[in-house]
Amino acid sequence: MHAQEMSEEIATVTRQTGALEAARMMAERRLPALVVVGPDGQPESILPASEVVRCLVPSYVQDDPSLAGVLSESMADRIAERLGTRTVRDLLPREPQELPQVNHDDTIIEVAALMARLRTPMVAVLRDHRMIGVITASRLLQVTLNTDRDG
Amino acid sequence: MHAQEMSEEIATVTRQTGALEAARMMAERRLPALVVVGPDGQPESILPASEVVRCLVPSYVQDDPSLAGVLSESMADRIAERLGTRTVRDLLPREPQELPQVNHDDTIIEVAALMARLRTPMVAVLRDHRMIGVITASRLLQVTLNTDRDG
Repeated sequence: MHAQEMSEEIATVTRQTGALEAARMMAERRLPALVVVGPDGQPESILPASEVVRCLVPSYVQDDPSLAGVLSESMADRIAERLGTRTVRDLLPREPQELPQVNHDDTIIEVAALMARLRTPMVAVLRDHRMIGVITASRLLQVTLNTDRDG
Repeated sequence: MHAQEMSEEIATVTRQTGALEAARMMAERRLPALVVVGPDGQPESILPASEVVRCLVPSYVQDDPSLAGVLSESMADRIAERLGTRTVRDLLPREPQELPQVNHDDTIIEVAALMARLRTPMVAVLRDHRMIGVITASRLLQVTLNTDRDG
């Protein structure tokens, strides 16, 4: 079993993708994260859903969380509007993260080792420098447990 | 819309739950994390899937990731056996994390504020000190976007 056989459908955006579109992808497909790819299709970084959620929260509430309780319901209902004016670039953390990627012919243990070291919920699978899919931590557990059952 | 209406089915374990059982729950239901509850049913911490993956990786490979590539395929196929002898307690990070929880009557913006501050993929929802469900970051985005569409 190699990375290519484990990999699943790609959920990618670029830095130019609208924040609202990225949020819809995560919401509709219930994804914990998306992969941000460059113009050449190479993965650049991971956008966790919690960073998109962060964009929903006004900065004065981020500075003082107790203010969240006093916002009116109608104001809270309109927080998604904040996503309309942003792009994925605006949602990415400022500190660059190590790029989680594996090769199509890496073994389960190689994928697990990288995921463990970076404590990342998802890695990109590359073949000839192009991304062909992703592997989430729960997918890796699924494959590992099935492999053992069949073995 | 309050936390209680947003919350989803609980996926909980205790510190005594077997690591293999916890891994199966994550694998079968494709969950990015589980909630670890105490004897009184109160949530204590989050167990991310990446920590379970970390348990699959022998410590000498964690220390030197290049060794992962030289492990034989048959050895890699048996990594799930490592889970059989462990419990959830063994998988939890040593440094205690701030406990992500919200009250059943908290608003979307309060939930989002906590999730954003802790950069957590999931929070527990409490009513009368007991856990009644969880909210993931992607679930919060789903609710937020639907709310706006209906409004």
